[in-house]
Amino acid sequence: MAKEVTSREENYSLWYNNLVVKADLAENSAVRGCMVIKPYGYAIWEKIQHQLDTMFKETGHQNAYFPLFIPKSFLSKEADHVEGFAKECAVVTHHRLKNNPDGSGVIVDPEAKLEEELIVRPTSETIIWNTYRNWIKSYRDLPILCNQWANVVRWEMRTRLFLRTAEFLWQEGHTAHATAQEAIEETEKMVNVYADFARNYMALPVVVGKKTESERFAGAIDTLCIEAMMQDGKALQAGTSHFLGQNFAKAFDVQFANKEGKLDYVWATSWGVSTRLMGALIMAHSDNNGLVLPPALAPIQVVMVPIYKGEEELKMMVEKMEEIKNELKPYGISVKIDDRDNVRSGFKFAEWELKGVPVRVVMGKRDLENGVVEIARRDTCEKSSVAREGIAEYIKNLLDEIQKNIYAKALNFREEHTVKVDTWEEFKEKIEEGGFLLCHWDGTAETEAKIKEETKATIRCIPLDSHVEIEEGTCVYSGKPSKQRVIFARAY
Amino acid sequence: MAKEVTSREENYSLWYNNLVVKADLAENSAVRGCMVIKPYGYAIWEKIQHQLDTMFKETGHQNAYFPLFIPKSFLSKEADHVEGFAKECAVVTHHRLKNNPDGSGVIVDPEAKLEEELIVRPTSETIIWNTYRNWIKSYRDLPILCNQWANVVRWEMRTRLFLRTAEFLWQEGHTAHATAQEAIEETEKMVNVYADFARNYMALPVVVGKKTESERFAGAIDTLCIEAMMQDGKALQAGTSHFLGQNFAKAFDVQFANKEGKLDYVWATSWGVSTRLMGALIMAHSDNNGLVLPPALAPIQVVMVPIYKGEEELKMMVEKMEEIKNELKPYGISVKIDDRDNVRSGFKFAEWELKGVPVRVVMGKRDLENGVVEIARRDTCEKSSVAREGIAEYIKNLLDEIQKNIYAKALNFREEHTVKVDTWEEFKEKIEEGGFLLCHWDGTAETEAKIKEETKATIRCIPLDSHVEIEEGTCVYSGKPSKQRVIFARAY
Repeated sequence: MAKEVTSREENYSLWYNNLVVKADLAENSAVRGCMVIKPYGYAIWEKIQHQLDTMFKETGHQNAYFPLFIPKSFLSKEADHVEGFAKECAVVTHHRLKNNPDGSGVIVDPEAKLEEELIVRPTSETIIWNTYRNWIKSYRDLPILCNQWANVVRWEMRTRLFLRTAEFLWQEGHTAHATAQEAIEETEKMVNVYADFARNYMALPVVVGKKTESERFAGAIDTLCIEAMMQDGKALQAGTSHFLGQNFAKAFDVQFANKEGKLDYVWATSWGVSTRLMGALIMAHSDNNGLVLPPALAPIQVVMVPIYKGEEELKMMVEKMEEIKNELKPYGISVKIDDRDNVRSGFKFAEWELKGVPVRVVMGKRDLENGVVEIARRDTCEKSSVAREGIAEYIKNLLDEIQKNIYAKALNFREEHTVKVDTWEEFKEKIEEGGFLLCHWDGTAETEAKIKEETKATIRCIPLDSHVEIEEGTCVYSGKPSKQRVIFARAY
Repeated sequence: MAKEVTSREENYSLWYNNLVVKADLAENSAVRGCMVIKPYGYAIWEKIQHQLDTMFKETGHQNAYFPLFIPKSFLSKEADHVEGFAKECAVVTHHRLKNNPDGSGVIVDPEAKLEEELIVRPTSETIIWNTYRNWIKSYRDLPILCNQWANVVRWEMRTRLFLRTAEFLWQEGHTAHATAQEAIEETEKMVNVYADFARNYMALPVVVGKKTESERFAGAIDTLCIEAMMQDGKALQAGTSHFLGQNFAKAFDVQFANKEGKLDYVWATSWGVSTRLMGALIMAHSDNNGLVLPPALAPIQVVMVPIYKGEEELKMMVEKMEEIKNELKPYGISVKIDDRDNVRSGFKFAEWELKGVPVRVVMGKRDLENGVVEIARRDTCEKSSVAREGIAEYIKNLLDEIQKNIYAKALNFREEHTVKVDTWEEFKEKIEEGGFLLCHWDGTAETEAKIKEETKATIRCIPLDSHVEIEEGTCVYSGKPSKQRVIFARAY
């Protein structure tokens, strides 16, 4: 292969980084912790955005846009919130540069100091709730169902492409409601939209659950999440939906007159997914040959590679491939014909494998004579000879099958790496093997902290869906009573 | 009308601001110069984005994403560029807040000072060309045709919603080419894409032209632009496309091996339009009743208002309206049925007029009996009774007609306010009336500066399209020879 990728077994972390860079998804920039998302990576992100945006609009949400900057004083208004974000803020202090009198370039103009420092948004609850105060007077103004697609900055010390970067792209929904019940329903609705998207588009099996108090969003009453398992057995939080209670309404004095004419504080939710999903997508499905993209999110779903001798044959093959491309168009299938004449077909095969294109169609002179094409599927790496006639429908069905198979494979992996653990000895042994440990927990932050300290494992969530049956038991660490098993794992 | 708008004649500037705020497009935020784009305004921006993005992709461009932050030293590498942007930069100097020991909130942690300050991008040439250095080795890597949708910050002192804000949303294309010729062709291609979009979607007649040296983008060899006329006769620059020569390739040492194997610097272009287009859209077409949106960019193209007595009738009307809505669906026409029972229909009429919805359909019991509906078009404010049968096709055609009429109206206005001026006395008189003055100019920056000083008029562009015939003459100010007329105007 032209660009070699370190194997998963050899060094999982290097394998991941290699994939991201060599498949042209993203790279580190000259700015610490900030990435460049390259066109191929961005095309996947656009597909993610487009589908999620459709689902948000179908559930009644509208997009809006709020300022990049947050006055420092706003951040302080909700105590838990500032505690959670103060340590990783990019702070704007000046608004002008000037020429250095010594001629060495530009320097910050000390006379252009801002009266109040501005924080580059790490999340937008504060600026948005400060805005909502002017939008909400009565119950008739509710609910407000806004989403924004934006960039945010959290000054992380250790960064990894897509998984943890100083700047990342995301969407953040911020809704306002007249009752706690309605806000709770919204929180649940949106975590389920995320789960639906992860399962059906990313081919990613996820557990829907609730975070423990210590893992909650800073300022939330409850945080719901979707958790996925990566191929090294580690957990990855792929999306969160927060019930914020009246915390931000109180911090920013957002009150409304209810139907009875009485003033009450507004109830809030917020929910988000980010370019971190790209990391989950890559880690969950890829192999040592490169990316394995689920057809639903692949920018190129079918690549066609002609086998030929001489210009004449190339031209003929490309013509035949254009015909197939046209037959695929009505199905909305995106096709790339790789007609480059300066690289060998073996190089092309490896490159498109690396880039995770779900289906490869190869056609040579003999195939043409026999009325067949060669089809290779990326998920299983199987090749087969298929009749040219009816090829469009065949490929359509194959893409559906690949989508399902990638999901099934990931689900199977998760099930194989999920175990019920009932003793502390077993816990310490099993956690080293990776995977999800289903354990009883006594419900205290103290026990949770001790387990984390001793094993680096955290409670990923208290499962909410039918994945785990509800059964009582005793805490794997303290032996105290427990109402249901929770998921412990090491995590990204 | 529920929300009164100051009239255009009374105070043009206040009229504009009123419209933006009262039609729920945008508002000022708590952060100086930064706006909140509200859902209705953002829905228009999404339509603009979607159409432009389609046109960029049709012309071979791909989207990517580059960092928000630019190291201070990068900005200094291109001399004209830093000169142009240094005075209006948001500068990040620290990466952490901490609790104030006096308990009064959070303060910037002096120990978290960045080694090198970061500038919030005012435009991305520098960070992008620093990245391109690693992407380009040979002519085979060219052209690179990237675009990004992003937010940028320019610390403007006087801001106005959409027209000039500290933070704004835009797209910036950045392309890299092997030859000057190819880069020049790209520059021209993209300014024509902008002109095409402005004319056919925004219904905005624009002049395509070239900027004079003093109005050029900081770091460009040539700046092409589209210029539109607003209803107060002022010019508005609606989009620019820059031929950057090898300036940025030299500043960031981006060289490639050409077909002959020799090293050469890469040729560059950049081009952008921003949320300023929203300002142009509003100012060009709106009237004293509110917005007038061209159907191609209206989030709601048809609003239906039932006239009824009692719940029973309301239900029946809404049912009938749902039928019409379904008939409009195949045409891709977006419809809103306003079934609110807590406001009068007069209030609804005024509200949807304010929001610029192109077509209003009204239906009462008598209309139903007579097999007609009442149609009001927003552009002319005309009402007519139209047969219910075949209404979908009627509306489809009406929307097309409205789109054309809005363009024709704006074109007519521009033509009425464009005059050839040949003497300095006439210039000083006419410039007070607003509009475009077509004048001969001697080609010197000195004359240009003097005219600006004396009249506040600038050269909007040297027209490139057939709008103005090429004829020689003598400069309106200096009397020196001139090769063609240019457009002078006061501008936003």
